[in-house]
Amino acid sequence: MDVSVIAIGDELLIGQVVDTNSGWIARHLNPLGWNVKSVKVIGDDSNEIFKAIDEAFAQTDIVLTTGGLGPTKDDITKPTLCRYFGGELVYDKEVERNVIEVLNKRHLKINELTATQAMVPSTCRVIQNEVGTAPIMWFEKSGKVLVAMPGVPFETEQMMERKVIPQLLKRFVPDEHIEHRTFVVIDYMESKLAMTLADFENELPEYIHLAYLPKMGVIRLRLSGRLRDGEALKADMARLSKRLHNILGDSIVSYEDKPLAAIVGDKLKAKGLKLSTVESCTGGNVAHAITLNAGSSEYFEGSVVAYSNDVKRNVLKVPAEVLSSVGAVSRETVEAMCSGVASLMATDCAIATSGIAGPGGGTPEKPVGTVWVAVKCGERVESECYHLPGTRDRVIERTTTNVLCKLIKMLIE
Amino acid sequence: MDVSVIAIGDELLIGQVVDTNSGWIARHLNPLGWNVKSVKVIGDDSNEIFKAIDEAFAQTDIVLTTGGLGPTKDDITKPTLCRYFGGELVYDKEVERNVIEVLNKRHLKINELTATQAMVPSTCRVIQNEVGTAPIMWFEKSGKVLVAMPGVPFETEQMMERKVIPQLLKRFVPDEHIEHRTFVVIDYMESKLAMTLADFENELPEYIHLAYLPKMGVIRLRLSGRLRDGEALKADMARLSKRLHNILGDSIVSYEDKPLAAIVGDKLKAKGLKLSTVESCTGGNVAHAITLNAGSSEYFEGSVVAYSNDVKRNVLKVPAEVLSSVGAVSRETVEAMCSGVASLMATDCAIATSGIAGPGGGTPEKPVGTVWVAVKCGERVESECYHLPGTRDRVIERTTTNVLCKLIKMLIE
Repeated sequence: MDVSVIAIGDELLIGQVVDTNSGWIARHLNPLGWNVKSVKVIGDDSNEIFKAIDEAFAQTDIVLTTGGLGPTKDDITKPTLCRYFGGELVYDKEVERNVIEVLNKRHLKINELTATQAMVPSTCRVIQNEVGTAPIMWFEKSGKVLVAMPGVPFETEQMMERKVIPQLLKRFVPDEHIEHRTFVVIDYMESKLAMTLADFENELPEYIHLAYLPKMGVIRLRLSGRLRDGEALKADMARLSKRLHNILGDSIVSYEDKPLAAIVGDKLKAKGLKLSTVESCTGGNVAHAITLNAGSSEYFEGSVVAYSNDVKRNVLKVPAEVLSSVGAVSRETVEAMCSGVASLMATDCAIATSGIAGPGGGTPEKPVGTVWVAVKCGERVESECYHLPGTRDRVIERTTTNVLCKLIKMLIE
Repeated sequence: MDVSVIAIGDELLIGQVVDTNSGWIARHLNPLGWNVKSVKVIGDDSNEIFKAIDEAFAQTDIVLTTGGLGPTKDDITKPTLCRYFGGELVYDKEVERNVIEVLNKRHLKINELTATQAMVPSTCRVIQNEVGTAPIMWFEKSGKVLVAMPGVPFETEQMMERKVIPQLLKRFVPDEHIEHRTFVVIDYMESKLAMTLADFENELPEYIHLAYLPKMGVIRLRLSGRLRDGEALKADMARLSKRLHNILGDSIVSYEDKPLAAIVGDKLKAKGLKLSTVESCTGGNVAHAITLNAGSSEYFEGSVVAYSNDVKRNVLKVPAEVLSSVGAVSRETVEAMCSGVASLMATDCAIATSGIAGPGGGTPEKPVGTVWVAVKCGERVESECYHLPGTRDRVIERTTTNVLCKLIKMLIE
């Protein structure tokens, strides 16, 4: 089953908001054997919306739209849907009741503008939005279906899971099975990995495809297959996974698509080890990445973001003479920070970062992008200096990725 | 000038990677008076790419594509460009030289696959990619221009700024001026704000448009105007900004589109105050948000991520009897954490968070989403309990937004 997605909103086209809904929709339709064929992002413009719906229906039987349904003036999607599917905007008491209920939960009262949410095209079937005030609207035309959803990602995600996907599955029964397997690979450049896997790729059956998804020095390999015989496809996938394991060994740090920090968590839990971090240039991002994972309190004690030298000295007991002789961005300092936090928080493992994220603060000896990290795993401490290109946020992200990779490797060895 | 963007890549359509390039492009073309008319996201499929280019050229004179240019098998964009614009793939020695240079900087050697990067359509003009190995390709056809760029955001962003935008500006001279003003508003629901601004909106000239961009309880208001007379438009914008200020007063916390943490930073700097944070449920995200801003070391001392009760007791001196009697998620605990970190790091201001981000850890008395925060500003300490809906990452983000808003308000008063 092919699906088209239309994301509506001026805010998307001036880049103030990034459209994350389309990706979420694709990620959640794929396991059902459904493909997002294309995504079109357009502004709050009636003619553009009309045309996009027309083009989408020419290509696929299911069209999902997000956005353009807020209560304020800049939203014109509902009248356009009326123009496309016929009918007129009518006041729907059930929607009003739902809006009141949702607002009540937030201790808010209905007002004139939220009441306009209750106006819906007479030609649609309403799916009540349980987590927001904009109703979800289901239209049918010549055997094809369009579902209009709000732009707020939380609302679209929740309502897709609770109502829209189940109702689409009843309406359209999937034909082929789709299987994906993702492998998280470290220590390879994309081109080197492609050469290593040349034979593997050449021998893939024509219904299975391999894709490379590199990001910040980590490559996610994705095997995708589609076949009527779901069991045969699963067996293929198992055989190919095993072959990849034989070729790449420990460079595959996960056989599921997980964030690096979750992989770290799995390995810490398996070994019963505790982790703490101490961060200067990453400013809390390593701790944030770790604690984004549910259950991280099992293995994560905490972190000190030691942004100033005072904190490095007073809280982490980095000797003043180390800071004054070799500076905060040095092997000596990150190693002292690392053992400082491990003893302060009584953990087996620790991560320390200190660097110049930029744009200011660089010197000829230590230009912007110079980052020292230390990783402690039991009695072993390894430290390393990186010279990272790019902007402040990129230096922070890349350092975070690098130290997590480093800890994973030390946990495997 | 209208621009179409085509984002190419199977990874975008299965939602494994979110297309941030289109937003970046839109954000950087808008100030030049150029509009992104639509964005189309398609897979690595030659016919789809061909059709998307055709449709885009029917609508706009400039088409920018991103993605589909990696050295591995799944990329078929270059042969498709050859099919569309004519010519054949030829080996370009200059591109090879550039690939070698870029790899040298990363201490890597050219290999067979990176060498395929040097194959380019004979019908394009190459713009050397200074920060990556995939060449940027400029095509012309019947007075229209297509520029094909890599999918890696860092490369596209850098090369757009350094080469592509300057060369497009030489090729197409802008006709109308565009001005945007963004106002960051707190303390309003979207519908209430719309009612407050009804008269203001009705009196806007037809060439100026107001949009509401709500996110996590903060609303960015955006005035956009386009007019041939740039000076007149600037004067309009100044007048309207002043009027918004008169209507909304201190609820406008910034007259520029800035992250909340940057607004906090501006206000701390203006008052010469220092900040520290102590985070349980937010796990370092508040510190991360603050330190994403260049120059944050001027006002930010550091943070303790106190994930375990041991750290709360030992590092922050939260009394053991407080933790055992009312628990970690309580007014007493966040207030003790707040003064604990302020004295540990010797700061005037401090932020403390403790809550149940979920999905586990909830109890009937303190369900998932229960979050206590305390904010200290000089001698004042204010604490508050939130009941936040949604997933773990949403509870973390929303708490971060809320405490930053709270500190901004205390800094204004």
